[in-house]
Amino acid sequence: MDRRGEFLLFALTPPRQAASPTKAQEIADLTLERLRALDLDGLVLYDIDDESDRNPDERPFPFLPTMDPGEYLSRHLRDANIPAVVYRAVGKYDEPDLRSWLRAQDPERVLSVFVGASSTDKPVATSLGRAQELRAESAPDLLLGGVAIPERHGRGSDEHLRMLAKQASGCAFFVTQVVYDANAAKNLVSDYCYECRSRGDDPVPIVFTFSVCGSIKTLEFLQWLGVEVPRWIENELRHAEDTLSASYDQALATARELMAYCRRLGVPFGINVESVSNRRAEIEASVDLAACLQGELHR
Amino acid sequence: MDRRGEFLLFALTPPRQAASPTKAQEIADLTLERLRALDLDGLVLYDIDDESDRNPDERPFPFLPTMDPGEYLSRHLRDANIPAVVYRAVGKYDEPDLRSWLRAQDPERVLSVFVGASSTDKPVATSLGRAQELRAESAPDLLLGGVAIPERHGRGSDEHLRMLAKQASGCAFFVTQVVYDANAAKNLVSDYCYECRSRGDDPVPIVFTFSVCGSIKTLEFLQWLGVEVPRWIENELRHAEDTLSASYDQALATARELMAYCRRLGVPFGINVESVSNRRAEIEASVDLAACLQGELHR
Repeated sequence: MDRRGEFLLFALTPPRQAASPTKAQEIADLTLERLRALDLDGLVLYDIDDESDRNPDERPFPFLPTMDPGEYLSRHLRDANIPAVVYRAVGKYDEPDLRSWLRAQDPERVLSVFVGASSTDKPVATSLGRAQELRAESAPDLLLGGVAIPERHGRGSDEHLRMLAKQASGCAFFVTQVVYDANAAKNLVSDYCYECRSRGDDPVPIVFTFSVCGSIKTLEFLQWLGVEVPRWIENELRHAEDTLSASYDQALATARELMAYCRRLGVPFGINVESVSNRRAEIEASVDLAACLQGELHR
Repeated sequence: MDRRGEFLLFALTPPRQAASPTKAQEIADLTLERLRALDLDGLVLYDIDDESDRNPDERPFPFLPTMDPGEYLSRHLRDANIPAVVYRAVGKYDEPDLRSWLRAQDPERVLSVFVGASSTDKPVATSLGRAQELRAESAPDLLLGGVAIPERHGRGSDEHLRMLAKQASGCAFFVTQVVYDANAAKNLVSDYCYECRSRGDDPVPIVFTFSVCGSIKTLEFLQWLGVEVPRWIENELRHAEDTLSASYDQALATARELMAYCRRLGVPFGINVESVSNRRAEIEASVDLAACLQGELHR
């Protein structure tokens, strides 16, 4: 709310819908145990939607419906004791559902990021614009974030204007998808920063997401999700003896570059670390990455 | 010839054709005086062609025909005492001219870079392929280089294959145009490196060219010439209080990034510094840039 950055989040994908309550609780407990070593400012809980309409290519990992992140939080993550940023793929929910969820949240503990449809011809129960209105009416104190996509800026050069439009609709921060292309992210931050300056407005925090990648299949999944991996990084990962370790070094270097850049420009930023895959080695490397970046934040 | 890198070149544009011999000699003497503080491995002498066919936009600086770089070298730069890489826009010369020039060169003192037509529909006196044949027949000991364009790799992803085809036609090194986009250069170096490895061949030196930019007009001229300037760098230069100093810092950072990257990959590289404009402050800052990079080369 005070537009300060330098905070650390860790992102989780809820367990599969098919998981029993006992199994889901086991997963939650194990996750919190893993994250105990970190001094996190918050969790991010993704709302996974079947985005196969967005990309005609075969999804490298099959789509398996996951638990509602709001339910996962309220039922299984009560012990977390830190705020959670709950994603809402708003097109999945009709207005009464969304409104009652918004009203039920404690704004001291829950923030939300609304995500619009993954393609323009996908039918939606609630549009992104309407969801933003509902939040303003029903839960004005609930801190709302939006997604910011450097890759989209590379194509249309107007992502910074979309961000400012989302701010006008109530967004107080932004979260990127996984960043592999530091240059694309810097292009977006730069255009956003100078547009804010020309409007006499202060920029809000941009949360950059980083992840390790332990195999070529995970790399291909990232690309399927729309993450643009620069050719030289892709080559490096494909030829690495240890893909996971190479991607860890890569993510760290990219994060450091963006942190230094944002500090220089005076754009507040947060760091979000996620594990794209649910393989144990990749999850553990993600926690290590978060621990390392935590030490470099000016908190 | 031994495929070692870590060398330093400084690039010059010959004086205008309209300059008198006395004036040309004054310019040459002043230039060599300026470069005396540097420990250069060689000069680069550009062959300026009217490339207005390549770009329908208005040329930010007017095209003024310049002296033939071979003549500038032989008539005015005899005191340089270092090898010179003489560019040849081969389309400008007919075969007998090109052959007799090639035969007249001392391979201990002169190297050449052949540049093909700036667009496919431009009529040429000699094609790039034919010029390469002439060199192989008439001056096999004259070390030949080719141009490598990271921006073209970004569009077609096959610039590394063009480079290998040029090697097969006799090229022993490559020179880029001015590099502002480190990411694009790394993509090309990476694809080139892994293609060499897969063929069991050793990479030849790639010479990266850097330049400062003291005004928005120089920036626009660079862009007109086909140099892709990342949006965040363009913003930085446009909003800088001191464009020249900001571009100096930028060029230095880009050069360091590429030097570290090539060393890590084991691709030999050289550094070439040029002044795109002929304003005194920009020329002096280019010499400073070369001096600074000279100290960072492993020679």
